[in-house]
Amino acid sequence: MASTSTLASTALVSYDELKKHNHAADCWILVHSKVWNVSSFLDEHPGGSAIILRYAGGDATSAYDEVHAPSILEQTLEKGQLIGVIDVTTMPAKPAFGAAELSVAEDSGLSNPISKPRQRSKPPLHSMIAVHDFEDVARDVYSEKTYAFYSSAATDLISHRDNQESFRKVMLRPRVLRNVRNVSIRRSILGCESSVPFFVSPTAMARLAHSDGELAIARGCGSQGIILTVSSNASYPLSDIVEAGLPKQPFFLQLYVNSDRQKTTQLLRKARDLGVQAVFVTVDAPIPGKREADERLAAGNLSSPVSGAVAVNDKKGGGLGRVMAQYIDSTLCWKDLPWIREASGGLPIVLKGIQTAADARAAADHGVEGILLSNHGGRSLDTTQPALLTLLEIHRQCPEILDQLEIYVDGGIRRGTDILKALALGATAVGIGRPYLYSLAYGQEGVEHLTEILSDELESAMKLVGITDVDQAHPGLVNTARLEPLIRTGETHPWIRWRSRSKL
Amino acid sequence: MASTSTLASTALVSYDELKKHNHAADCWILVHSKVWNVSSFLDEHPGGSAIILRYAGGDATSAYDEVHAPSILEQTLEKGQLIGVIDVTTMPAKPAFGAAELSVAEDSGLSNPISKPRQRSKPPLHSMIAVHDFEDVARDVYSEKTYAFYSSAATDLISHRDNQESFRKVMLRPRVLRNVRNVSIRRSILGCESSVPFFVSPTAMARLAHSDGELAIARGCGSQGIILTVSSNASYPLSDIVEAGLPKQPFFLQLYVNSDRQKTTQLLRKARDLGVQAVFVTVDAPIPGKREADERLAAGNLSSPVSGAVAVNDKKGGGLGRVMAQYIDSTLCWKDLPWIREASGGLPIVLKGIQTAADARAAADHGVEGILLSNHGGRSLDTTQPALLTLLEIHRQCPEILDQLEIYVDGGIRRGTDILKALALGATAVGIGRPYLYSLAYGQEGVEHLTEILSDELESAMKLVGITDVDQAHPGLVNTARLEPLIRTGETHPWIRWRSRSKL
Amino acid sequence: MASTSTLASTALVSYDELKKHNHAADCWILVHSKVWNVSSFLDEHPGGSAIILRYAGGDATSAYDEVHAPSILEQTLEKGQLIGVIDVTTMPAKPAFGAAELSVAEDSGLSNPISKPRQRSKPPLHSMIAVHDFEDVARDVYSEKTYAFYSSAATDLISHRDNQESFRKVMLRPRVLRNVRNVSIRRSILGCESSVPFFVSPTAMARLAHSDGELAIARGCGSQGIILTVSSNASYPLSDIVEAGLPKQPFFLQLYVNSDRQKTTQLLRKARDLGVQAVFVTVDAPIPGKREADERLAAGNLSSPVSGAVAVNDKKGGGLGRVMAQYIDSTLCWKDLPWIREASGGLPIVLKGIQTAADARAAADHGVEGILLSNHGGRSLDTTQPALLTLLEIHRQCPEILDQLEIYVDGGIRRGTDILKALALGATAVGIGRPYLYSLAYGQEGVEHLTEILSDELESAMKLVGITDVDQAHPGLVNTARLEPLIRTGETHPWIRWRSRSKL
Amino acid sequence: MASTSTLASTALVSYDELKKHNHAADCWILVHSKVWNVSSFLDEHPGGSAIILRYAGGDATSAYDEVHAPSILEQTLEKGQLIGVIDVTTMPAKPAFGAAELSVAEDSGLSNPISKPRQRSKPPLHSMIAVHDFEDVARDVYSEKTYAFYSSAATDLISHRDNQESFRKVMLRPRVLRNVRNVSIRRSILGCESSVPFFVSPTAMARLAHSDGELAIARGCGSQGIILTVSSNASYPLSDIVEAGLPKQPFFLQLYVNSDRQKTTQLLRKARDLGVQAVFVTVDAPIPGKREADERLAAGNLSSPVSGAVAVNDKKGGGLGRVMAQYIDSTLCWKDLPWIREASGGLPIVLKGIQTAADARAAADHGVEGILLSNHGGRSLDTTQPALLTLLEIHRQCPEILDQLEIYVDGGIRRGTDILKALALGATAVGIGRPYLYSLAYGQEGVEHLTEILSDELESAMKLVGITDVDQAHPGLVNTARLEPLIRTGETHPWIRWRSRSKL
Repeated sequence: MASTSTLASTALVSYDELKKHNHAADCWILVHSKVWNVSSFLDEHPGGSAIILRYAGGDATSAYDEVHAPSILEQTLEKGQLIGVIDVTTMPAKPAFGAAELSVAEDSGLSNPISKPRQRSKPPLHSMIAVHDFEDVARDVYSEKTYAFYSSAATDLISHRDNQESFRKVMLRPRVLRNVRNVSIRRSILGCESSVPFFVSPTAMARLAHSDGELAIARGCGSQGIILTVSSNASYPLSDIVEAGLPKQPFFLQLYVNSDRQKTTQLLRKARDLGVQAVFVTVDAPIPGKREADERLAAGNLSSPVSGAVAVNDKKGGGLGRVMAQYIDSTLCWKDLPWIREASGGLPIVLKGIQTAADARAAADHGVEGILLSNHGGRSLDTTQPALLTLLEIHRQCPEILDQLEIYVDGGIRRGTDILKALALGATAVGIGRPYLYSLAYGQEGVEHLTEILSDELESAMKLVGITDVDQAHPGLVNTARLEPLIRTGETHPWIRWRSRSKL
Repeated sequence: MASTSTLASTALVSYDELKKHNHAADCWILVHSKVWNVSSFLDEHPGGSAIILRYAGGDATSAYDEVHAPSILEQTLEKGQLIGVIDVTTMPAKPAFGAAELSVAEDSGLSNPISKPRQRSKPPLHSMIAVHDFEDVARDVYSEKTYAFYSSAATDLISHRDNQESFRKVMLRPRVLRNVRNVSIRRSILGCESSVPFFVSPTAMARLAHSDGELAIARGCGSQGIILTVSSNASYPLSDIVEAGLPKQPFFLQLYVNSDRQKTTQLLRKARDLGVQAVFVTVDAPIPGKREADERLAAGNLSSPVSGAVAVNDKKGGGLGRVMAQYIDSTLCWKDLPWIREASGGLPIVLKGIQTAADARAAADHGVEGILLSNHGGRSLDTTQPALLTLLEIHRQCPEILDQLEIYVDGGIRRGTDILKALALGATAVGIGRPYLYSLAYGQEGVEHLTEILSDELESAMKLVGITDVDQAHPGLVNTARLEPLIRTGETHPWIRWRSRSKL
Repeated sequence: MASTSTLASTALVSYDELKKHNHAADCWILVHSKVWNVSSFLDEHPGGSAIILRYAGGDATSAYDEVHAPSILEQTLEKGQLIGVIDVTTMPAKPAFGAAELSVAEDSGLSNPISKPRQRSKPPLHSMIAVHDFEDVARDVYSEKTYAFYSSAATDLISHRDNQESFRKVMLRPRVLRNVRNVSIRRSILGCESSVPFFVSPTAMARLAHSDGELAIARGCGSQGIILTVSSNASYPLSDIVEAGLPKQPFFLQLYVNSDRQKTTQLLRKARDLGVQAVFVTVDAPIPGKREADERLAAGNLSSPVSGAVAVNDKKGGGLGRVMAQYIDSTLCWKDLPWIREASGGLPIVLKGIQTAADARAAADHGVEGILLSNHGGRSLDTTQPALLTLLEIHRQCPEILDQLEIYVDGGIRRGTDILKALALGATAVGIGRPYLYSLAYGQEGVEHLTEILSDELESAMKLVGITDVDQAHPGLVNTARLEPLIRTGETHPWIRWRSRSKL
Repeated sequence: MASTSTLASTALVSYDELKKHNHAADCWILVHSKVWNVSSFLDEHPGGSAIILRYAGGDATSAYDEVHAPSILEQTLEKGQLIGVIDVTTMPAKPAFGAAELSVAEDSGLSNPISKPRQRSKPPLHSMIAVHDFEDVARDVYSEKTYAFYSSAATDLISHRDNQESFRKVMLRPRVLRNVRNVSIRRSILGCESSVPFFVSPTAMARLAHSDGELAIARGCGSQGIILTVSSNASYPLSDIVEAGLPKQPFFLQLYVNSDRQKTTQLLRKARDLGVQAVFVTVDAPIPGKREADERLAAGNLSSPVSGAVAVNDKKGGGLGRVMAQYIDSTLCWKDLPWIREASGGLPIVLKGIQTAADARAAADHGVEGILLSNHGGRSLDTTQPALLTLLEIHRQCPEILDQLEIYVDGGIRRGTDILKALALGATAVGIGRPYLYSLAYGQEGVEHLTEILSDELESAMKLVGITDVDQAHPGLVNTARLEPLIRTGETHPWIRWRSRSKL
């Protein structure tokens, strides 16, 4: 593997020389200070050769930086492919303003919606006082494509809206005149200590929001003592993300099982070796959801160094979400769980995306350590039940499983009161997804500030309902009357006898 | 019957000669390249003489094309009425732009809202990714009158809105960790193979949207393997429509029984001879609904070659829908069903517009092969129950009929998830109406693309709820709690003892 | 009493002469062609002397016409007070446009919001195809004050909105395949034949909308065969209104009992003498409601020749509704009903404004012939139950009274389907109020056209639900599930034991 | 203590002399006509020294007046600190317009959002006919910060909105034909006679709205015969407020218990000495709520002479509400109630902020005289139950306590009908908060006019439902069906067995 320290004897390459090697058969590109011969790599590039050839004989730095972590290139190419270092004195002058972000469009003459931010200024971080503030900022400062990819949800956004509404519909029932001076919100999640009863839900491609991407999230989580669930479609390698954290900082890994199961085995081994503490197997997305806001903008060229997922432009259009999901194995079944556990070296397994009490019970029967009640933030299938409703359904149908595994909830949680409501109904912790992507507008500091806001709101809510420890949260603190008429009380339909043509 | 091949010896007519024959007693008109003497036909024209006289001694081509299929004229007029072919070198210059669509207004000096499209450009077909996209396009590119006729619904649009809402209110309950790689959405409908569990619901006057009208729909259905239910008020003759399809392509015929029952008998015989597979007898519209958006625009002169229905301007105004419905027999009763079956030569009969469990049971008792639960897309009587509610009512009151006939549902279905919900509750198939009229903005390709969108959404929804064949759909997949409080559990009112003055 | 035929010998008065008598002690005014000495009448004028003195020595015609019927003046003044007829050749020129309506403001220099219409043009009557259309026109063409007086409702308009919503929430359940060619909507109301099952609910001061006011309504009702309930606060004398109708045309009289009971006795006797068929005693407005839209505009000077109610400007402002209600007897009790019946010579009595099943039962116990379930169009007390809910409450609590008296419903009825729903639940007829005031924008023709719209909509709705006579309407035709959770099942609260401090 | 009468011999100080003493070590300030040496006071100033130093050597009158009552300064400083009176002939000219309000910004060059009113004109008082009118005026004429502080509520404003909605959802059920000429709305509250069944709920810092602040409210309450509950965070000393009232005018004191309990003891003793009639102990705000509209504007420097609470700018921002709450004792428990009663010399105790039937029962068990059901106007914790729902919960769970203590309700009451509904459900009286702060735009007259509006609306509502005394209000007058599904019927959750990890 080439490293900068070995380059002493490497030739200095002039910009004019670089420009000569500008076609597939003889293709040099400049990435940061190094010039590489990528002719033989063109066919292997997961994102296709076209995107590389666009920069043949030129500077590919900005385009590379947008979608790849710095270390990927040197890990991928052979040492022999390194031509030398550029003679910077021969480089043409760059525009003074926003070069990094604008260069793709300028160099190529193409408009790349991913790299075009809508505006540059954002309010100072200390003026962010609520989770919604971060979303407002993200809408303003992220590129249209990035915001669409992060914020979009399936088809008519009904589940997306219902998720938030389900929390708002639960009323709190404060008890008064308790000593609430000191309050603790610490909680153990799968045996890992967390300073708060929430964690970062897995979200893909954080680098679209900030050049440090998941590294910034990992660092922010470390300083705040919270746990990051790394996405299979993260934009940095898992090892980089874990190494960005503090020593012994706990991480979870979200897993999309690859149709090429060998790759999944490798990923799980690497996760175990890196000290990852649990595997969250996504079970609610055997295929990608139809996120129309995302699909209406053409996908760029992106890849994930974790899963190897690649987003390329296809002729049909197709959003980032859809193209990145193409490697996912839609045959994954309950009987595959032992293999996952074995491949991970016995890590705790959490099923992410459980949406019925029946499947929650099945999860318990299969011995997993936890379930994340989730409809994928409304991104997978529209009009599915909100997770909070599934939690109530579990209370109705199989409350015994609350003693058998840990239950988490995500989707639509935006307030400390939302967290408290989930805890009061028996959740061990909740996941926060999109808000962390939005907080990345401020990098690591945004991640930390968002965590502080939620922690502060949760502490306040606890004091105001009269409890001083998350363990004291109990159902008497919530009035769920508005949701109760919607709860299914059994696995079969309560009064419809007809089932299906196949008597399934 | 005159045909083009017999015209060799026909005189060439100059435009100046044509212009001389410009009054009722001596009335020539030009339609496409032929000049006809229509003096003796004026009184027989179903649309009245006034509209023809407007073009006496002139070119009636555009006006004719708007409302008539090409073959009608030669089928209707006698060979002796053909004067000759126009000498095109004598014709005045035409405006370069949009002549066909604008000519009525230009020639007559009158504004004809039917022929005035609102704008000409439309987005490329591949950018249509949802059913709603087609409606947006139709609103933009169809003439105001056409859009009003297609989109309008009865009075306050409450049922129209409730139809869509009823589907949105049902929540899906996905089951996870099933192998869903391969999925089949094929279904047999009344014994006909269909590539999908939906069909094209009957809609009138498709020619207003596209010059190929129902022909384009028939061709699109053929290439996609889906079934078209031809409207009694189609703008092309039934034979043309059937012939536009592929060999053995199945068609259904929607039937409004004519007050002149002889005409209905003729139509049914023709349908049988053409190989139509079933008759959908409309039972929810003995009179037309009050569609105010439609009525606020004066009706033009239209006729249907299927039913012979004619829309003429009356002094009261009256929308297209109202005037076209004037021939419908409002005395049609249950006892007439045997006559319909006999007249059709024993074709399967489906009652379209069943809105109560009581009538569903009556339909089963009368031995029909199917019922289409429908409130006519909200176009007939406002504030009627959505079809999905009637389906639930059947489960409550007479579930046994699900084994006796096929049940279809239409009204408000816009998503693959909507289709899945109807199937999960026992529907054999669903009907899609207005969206196909909107898709005609793109002709046959639009019909095909719309079908692909719905098929794709349905397949995705099935995979995401964990089933691989439409036969596996079952009530456990849906949470209908939001609709259940609205279901009537018996034919009589649950607690009101008073019935009526007549003790009906 | 002076009449035109006796004026032959009366002096001709010049405009200059008139102008000299311009103060309280010597006050002549011109009304139409006659000059009156009103010096001795100033103190008796129910509207106060100030308004008359504004026209002392001048032409009071326009101001008079706005608020008084033509016949009032000659009925009120003595013959000796007639000075003569004006010499029209001595009159100053009038403005050509809109003199009648603008003259108050012009003469007095004051802005009178009652007489300032917002715009003059209105769409042709035949373009009115729904009840809502008339409201839209009224909003445009009536003066701001008139529209506020007619359209306003109590405080936050919640009952006003709930009234309409209550009908929309009821779903219809059409039965199909019935012979519905011929339909009858005739109904007997309190023994009077009516061509429709609805009547004109009493509304005050129709003259604000049209110079013919209640006369135009009476004529329109006559030609359409429907019944007008004349308001105690009508702007024409009861005799004029009755005489405007056809011979034997039935009328009802709405009654506000006057604190001066003698006046009520006189009114009832006059009603009986005029052949009025029933008395609707208003029981839901012992004091006026707070109609803020009305109160925000200063009241003008109006009086009703039926009740003698007078609206004068007071210093607090106060809307038309409030000031006109000042004579109403707030001590009226159940025990006063026999007196009313006796005073009316035994006319049928209907209690207007019953809002609970308990009072409905009390009404039946007191032997009245009918009750009008009503919350006064939401004008009296906000957040009261809609009438339709009270009708359902009667079904729950005391269905036996449906056999003991006739029940009517009003408030929020805007569609034929609304009428059908009330009939299906046992109402004998419904009342239509504000829409008739709005239809007066077109005078008598508007009244007739509105009646035709509602009749036509009702007939259509009946055909589409499968009935051919209003007597066939029955509860099975409606799904009231959305209202049922709101019905009180007993006179006392179902589970609250505490009643009041006074153990009332 | 210095008083004006002792100033005869004091030196006259020129403005030039004053300007020389402009730093911390030698700091003079001018307040009204007197010049003080505040060097030694700088460190003691509860609002910090910075704000004083801004005016060192200058005129601090306007800044002082905004946040302090006139008497505070002379009570606080020693006589020896008085330098003399200013020689007004040496003062620079002042701007003619709005000097008092604008001077802070002008003198300091800083923008102080508290002192910048948005506009100056307001409609005449007599045009205010509804409570909402006052809110509209306040939004227009109060400074942005003041309006934010008064109007804001916790986080997403859900409880704030639900409070009002809860009243609107209750329907009234008028009984008719009762003699309602004379009506009494007097009520005894904790043994104090009140002309109405409502009182002024405690609200902080009335001086932001009007220079007379709580004094104006006290005077208005006196003239109207209603009771003011003085806030712990009032902007005038309790003694000033009480003395502003009439002799024997009853007052209640709202109490935030201070972490320094000694201060609370002193305050309660003073209250008792001043003749305060009851203590309302706030129990729903051990910490301040998160009122984001308030927090988004930087807090100014304010202090309350009642509690001693001080609002200073901290670096985090933080709204007025948050900073003023910092002294509140979050350890306050049920066992502290005897101490409060003793410290107050046995005054009646009301717990303000009870939100569950369980705590209502506990309050009764602890022998308090009353409870104020309240969620702090939605300002404390968002998504808490509205008070009206808690009142219904009490009827379900512990109706016996209605005989043991008085129950009040506040939050969202804006209409006379709202008051009537609370009384019908057993409330002794209701509290009105924000509206009185808004009425202060018109000073004492506004307070009186607001009271008249509510009294008038309540009287009207009573007449229209058929009662003549507030004691006659009973549950049969209200239809609470829309709220009933939300009522919790027991202290524990009806069907959830899981409680909490700690088995609390």
